[in-house]
Amino acid sequence: MTSKPIRAIVVGGTGYTGAELVRLVLGHPSTELVSIVGNTTAGQAVADVLPSLRGIVDAVVQPFDPDAVAAQADVAFCALPHAASAEAVSALRQRGQKVFDLSADFRFEDLAVYEAWYGKHPVPERLSEAVYGLVELHREELRTADLIAVPGCYPTASTLALAPLVKNGLIRLDGIVVDAKSGVSGAGRGVSSATHFAETAEGVRAYKAGAHRHGPEIEQELSRLAGEPLKIAFVPHLIPMTRGILATCYAQPADSSLTAAACVEAARTLYAGSPSVHVLDEGEHPDTLWVRGSNRVHLGYAQDRNGQTIIAMSAIDNLVKGASGQAIQCLNVRFGLDEGAGLQAPAQWP
Amino acid sequence: MTSKPIRAIVVGGTGYTGAELVRLVLGHPSTELVSIVGNTTAGQAVADVLPSLRGIVDAVVQPFDPDAVAAQADVAFCALPHAASAEAVSALRQRGQKVFDLSADFRFEDLAVYEAWYGKHPVPERLSEAVYGLVELHREELRTADLIAVPGCYPTASTLALAPLVKNGLIRLDGIVVDAKSGVSGAGRGVSSATHFAETAEGVRAYKAGAHRHGPEIEQELSRLAGEPLKIAFVPHLIPMTRGILATCYAQPADSSLTAAACVEAARTLYAGSPSVHVLDEGEHPDTLWVRGSNRVHLGYAQDRNGQTIIAMSAIDNLVKGASGQAIQCLNVRFGLDEGAGLQAPAQWP
Amino acid sequence: MTSKPIRAIVVGGTGYTGAELVRLVLGHPSTELVSIVGNTTAGQAVADVLPSLRGIVDAVVQPFDPDAVAAQADVAFCALPHAASAEAVSALRQRGQKVFDLSADFRFEDLAVYEAWYGKHPVPERLSEAVYGLVELHREELRTADLIAVPGCYPTASTLALAPLVKNGLIRLDGIVVDAKSGVSGAGRGVSSATHFAETAEGVRAYKAGAHRHGPEIEQELSRLAGEPLKIAFVPHLIPMTRGILATCYAQPADSSLTAAACVEAARTLYAGSPSVHVLDEGEHPDTLWVRGSNRVHLGYAQDRNGQTIIAMSAIDNLVKGASGQAIQCLNVRFGLDEGAGLQAPAQWP
Amino acid sequence: MTSKPIRAIVVGGTGYTGAELVRLVLGHPSTELVSIVGNTTAGQAVADVLPSLRGIVDAVVQPFDPDAVAAQADVAFCALPHAASAEAVSALRQRGQKVFDLSADFRFEDLAVYEAWYGKHPVPERLSEAVYGLVELHREELRTADLIAVPGCYPTASTLALAPLVKNGLIRLDGIVVDAKSGVSGAGRGVSSATHFAETAEGVRAYKAGAHRHGPEIEQELSRLAGEPLKIAFVPHLIPMTRGILATCYAQPADSSLTAAACVEAARTLYAGSPSVHVLDEGEHPDTLWVRGSNRVHLGYAQDRNGQTIIAMSAIDNLVKGASGQAIQCLNVRFGLDEGAGLQAPAQWP
Repeated sequence: MTSKPIRAIVVGGTGYTGAELVRLVLGHPSTELVSIVGNTTAGQAVADVLPSLRGIVDAVVQPFDPDAVAAQADVAFCALPHAASAEAVSALRQRGQKVFDLSADFRFEDLAVYEAWYGKHPVPERLSEAVYGLVELHREELRTADLIAVPGCYPTASTLALAPLVKNGLIRLDGIVVDAKSGVSGAGRGVSSATHFAETAEGVRAYKAGAHRHGPEIEQELSRLAGEPLKIAFVPHLIPMTRGILATCYAQPADSSLTAAACVEAARTLYAGSPSVHVLDEGEHPDTLWVRGSNRVHLGYAQDRNGQTIIAMSAIDNLVKGASGQAIQCLNVRFGLDEGAGLQAPAQWP
Repeated sequence: MTSKPIRAIVVGGTGYTGAELVRLVLGHPSTELVSIVGNTTAGQAVADVLPSLRGIVDAVVQPFDPDAVAAQADVAFCALPHAASAEAVSALRQRGQKVFDLSADFRFEDLAVYEAWYGKHPVPERLSEAVYGLVELHREELRTADLIAVPGCYPTASTLALAPLVKNGLIRLDGIVVDAKSGVSGAGRGVSSATHFAETAEGVRAYKAGAHRHGPEIEQELSRLAGEPLKIAFVPHLIPMTRGILATCYAQPADSSLTAAACVEAARTLYAGSPSVHVLDEGEHPDTLWVRGSNRVHLGYAQDRNGQTIIAMSAIDNLVKGASGQAIQCLNVRFGLDEGAGLQAPAQWP
Repeated sequence: MTSKPIRAIVVGGTGYTGAELVRLVLGHPSTELVSIVGNTTAGQAVADVLPSLRGIVDAVVQPFDPDAVAAQADVAFCALPHAASAEAVSALRQRGQKVFDLSADFRFEDLAVYEAWYGKHPVPERLSEAVYGLVELHREELRTADLIAVPGCYPTASTLALAPLVKNGLIRLDGIVVDAKSGVSGAGRGVSSATHFAETAEGVRAYKAGAHRHGPEIEQELSRLAGEPLKIAFVPHLIPMTRGILATCYAQPADSSLTAAACVEAARTLYAGSPSVHVLDEGEHPDTLWVRGSNRVHLGYAQDRNGQTIIAMSAIDNLVKGASGQAIQCLNVRFGLDEGAGLQAPAQWP
Repeated sequence: MTSKPIRAIVVGGTGYTGAELVRLVLGHPSTELVSIVGNTTAGQAVADVLPSLRGIVDAVVQPFDPDAVAAQADVAFCALPHAASAEAVSALRQRGQKVFDLSADFRFEDLAVYEAWYGKHPVPERLSEAVYGLVELHREELRTADLIAVPGCYPTASTLALAPLVKNGLIRLDGIVVDAKSGVSGAGRGVSSATHFAETAEGVRAYKAGAHRHGPEIEQELSRLAGEPLKIAFVPHLIPMTRGILATCYAQPADSSLTAAACVEAARTLYAGSPSVHVLDEGEHPDTLWVRGSNRVHLGYAQDRNGQTIIAMSAIDNLVKGASGQAIQCLNVRFGLDEGAGLQAPAQWP
């Protein structure tokens, strides 16, 4: 541990990803939690807003003041809603703060794509400054980035599963399907009948089938790897569980001799130096329970018995590797720490 | 109601589909429950084996005796494991009994396909006698059938979603993907770590990806509709809920002008006289909770924003429309009753 | 079945108890559903508000008009919030309508108790007109009642478990504890963080411990049976499931020779003519899953190994026997029908 | 951190408490995991038995060999079934090993009580050697203990809630009721219909009401605090969640002037130096979700509105504070480490 820990502030710290950021910063050997900022909860005790911190954090939620944040902290994690985040991030960047942004605001290279899905961007001039924080694929750029766009939960799971296949030309670039299943915490802390226990338990359903805004984010990353634009069909589903994403991806092999074993091998090669990724043996299936609460990614590959379709599966915890843990992983890389620092705990199973 | 009700026996009545058969036979206006037969539980009180029948059914589970069954009942529902079922069915058919078999033993026209997936068939000579009990697609043949092979749960959901598209040539026959999500009751009443609450809640995982034996059953029915052999990729998933199947099916349009609205229209036309099927409006997503406990099928159609992929979704209760309710629906058709008799109750929501 | 069915309207039909009322009225052999009335959803399609009715009910939610209700229907079921219900009920009673009210507004004999827990009563003059609709204990009065106050969910479960003990003087009247566990649907359809899936799954907690307004309702009924006022300690808990109440009641035996077997016997005697109640054998434990979706009550009795404490347990479905099914049961009694008409289906298990 | 970590072996490491022990030992700053011992899984890869350790632990489950354990490790955690544990513990103690035993075998001072509930004790002569590992109440004795009997999950939750009241004479010693609710992981990893997802979800039920063997364990500890023998009524319930115990305890005040606020105060005084315990404010209710995955105990106190009954509530994670975390807490005390070492992480919420 360094003698001077990295001082961190969590802006928007009172939702689910904020709670996870606080937990991870508290448990990290090289970071210090300076304060928790929240718009609607400012002035309340942190422990009243985040009940898991009762008896642990004795502080009050602070209103957002970019000068104060810049003065007190070395880094800011922003877990604000889209657009609101861009404003806050911009204010912090003006003050020279390193920012890890969990919103979508800085994930897209192409402003037009962003605006087609999220509306007008408040500070488009900063897009070029950002690096996409999928560590396994952008590790080198992240070492010097000061504005890091932490990926979405679905794009993290989906891209990591497909990257070895796309990058190595193992699959055809047309006809890729991503069928993703998410726990309810992915919908955030806001209340609605879509998250009401009674209307969610014992139900599984797709939502925004073919029209979810994580689709273009996945396409951006896969196109980058492919070296040419590609399109996917992306359908997310809501599952009666709190945490976890399983992405089941379907693609046609580029060559009829492709085997699942070759996919496993390609993934193991690509992720050889990636402490968060574990590639299962051929024939094994990832399970979100096996990674719950951890920053780990479990990948699995299978082939349909007809030999036509490759099935790539990926399990993550949407709040950890799909959000807050990945933000910490980015910090580790940016500050030259061990990539797994503070993230090595196995899942709490069961 | 006829003055003489149809006397029914449930063979293998002490698992989950058996329990549902008993519930449905008891609530049916034209059937009478004669007895419940179970191999391993013979001699126990029915109410000890099926606790929902406490205070309702005052009987003892009977051992299987084909002569007694044939003497006492007009019809037998068989809810036995594969292969064991074929033996029992054959014994009952020899005695002239009408049989509704919930196993896979008589679902396949092609013995080779059956034996590739289930092993040696005890009475292959009876395969030709059976009619596949997917009422919406085989209604006319069922009116005179005496051996009815009630479809599997995944094939019911998947085939009904895809049938309007395949039958009308709206989609290409190659590259069809079925990503299915099932509640845990689909694994049956047997205990294993795969059904242990602690290892199932908060977890979602695929199993037998690309290699589940319901794949060829779906292919048989879709090939029949297509008029030519087709292959699909089929991946089932286990979901932390008790009941329900959601099948999300992906296919490429045969013609680039195909719209989701046209798919909705095709489905509404095909299922116009089918009381169990409801086709949602374009843009709506079926939810297993909306059909839980009922014999209903909710279908929905969407198109990926890139215009490449058609998404067909189907929600059923795996124990009702996916098993026992469908068996009753077959009985209704076979005996000239209203197709929805005893099956009209809406889902218990929430 | 009578040639002229009883015409029923459900006022406040778009919450969970309303949905169950609609389901039960539709499935009842002697009732006809005339319309569904809802304040905030008037003008919307019923099937949009209650998705389980897609393809089944083709009607629009009606605004509340007491003249229209009185003209069209023989009976009204009111499933409105407290106080709003009293107003609606009064308007209907003025027009001579028979009303089954699921709110608390007419459950209390003592106005002061009502107002201490619910606030000012809009029409206190009507309290004396009402009969408490716990059929097993008020069957005779209900045969002629025109304003029926359907009991709360917790009071139904708790009172039925304790009634045989209190009525027969088997237990001491001081020191009774009711520890009740409810599924989340008991909190209604309104959204809040208390019903958010992510904050409810994997959590169990008491709420309003010792201060819930169902406490005095239980006390009213038990005091009536005891012939003297008694007080209980009542603590409800929220459980991560959708439906069901388990009430575990603790009391000290009046006489040290009391056995659990004697409690079972007392319950079987008291409920001998009650088709909804099933008393388990000594040593068996009721389970909410065993009654889910049904109007049944399972009661069980045990004694602590130290011989000091009697444990009375009761399982119901909070939306059926704890609300809508009980309302139908009241209607059956009021109209001289079989008490179990439309309510005989066993639970959907599992 | 010391330069020489404490070398630990987990005997019986392949069930749920074993998995948690491994996770906690791996994350502890002063311990080193030497090996994992398992009877039935010896020879298998640890990562195949405990899937959360895929990619983390590259070792094989070892057969139990007391000489090897004593040679390789400074301490052994035993997570074996009752009776089997006593044999293993005795073998290890003979070799001078410090042992933290998670079974019931050494929890009882009175051999007769043990044998009444668990059967014949294999090594009764060692009972006197053991210290009961409820750190908050036995801290001083634990500093020198070499055989530590880690308490049961229910006794941990129940005793901590009631201890401040009993120790300070605030409540009457007769008539105490403990109504406890446990997640399904408390039943262990063994499969049975009682843990089958489909028969557990949507169900809540008591089991062994008044006759569970954790009752006498609670009585032992409370009697010790009271200075005289007392008896309680103890009823455990199974709840459809994986982790967590909520104990709701009911007692009569010794003096009618007792308030919930005084109970809160007594608890805060007793647990002033206990880093794992947090006492909520009067009127707040503990929630198992708020402590899930952590070693924390949340206590809350309320009083029934009638002023008769004190309600003491306690929430823990049954696998952490109720088992493996508590074992680590004992180790910390035994080795003079910070009591919270390796246990300070807040719950993973939600």
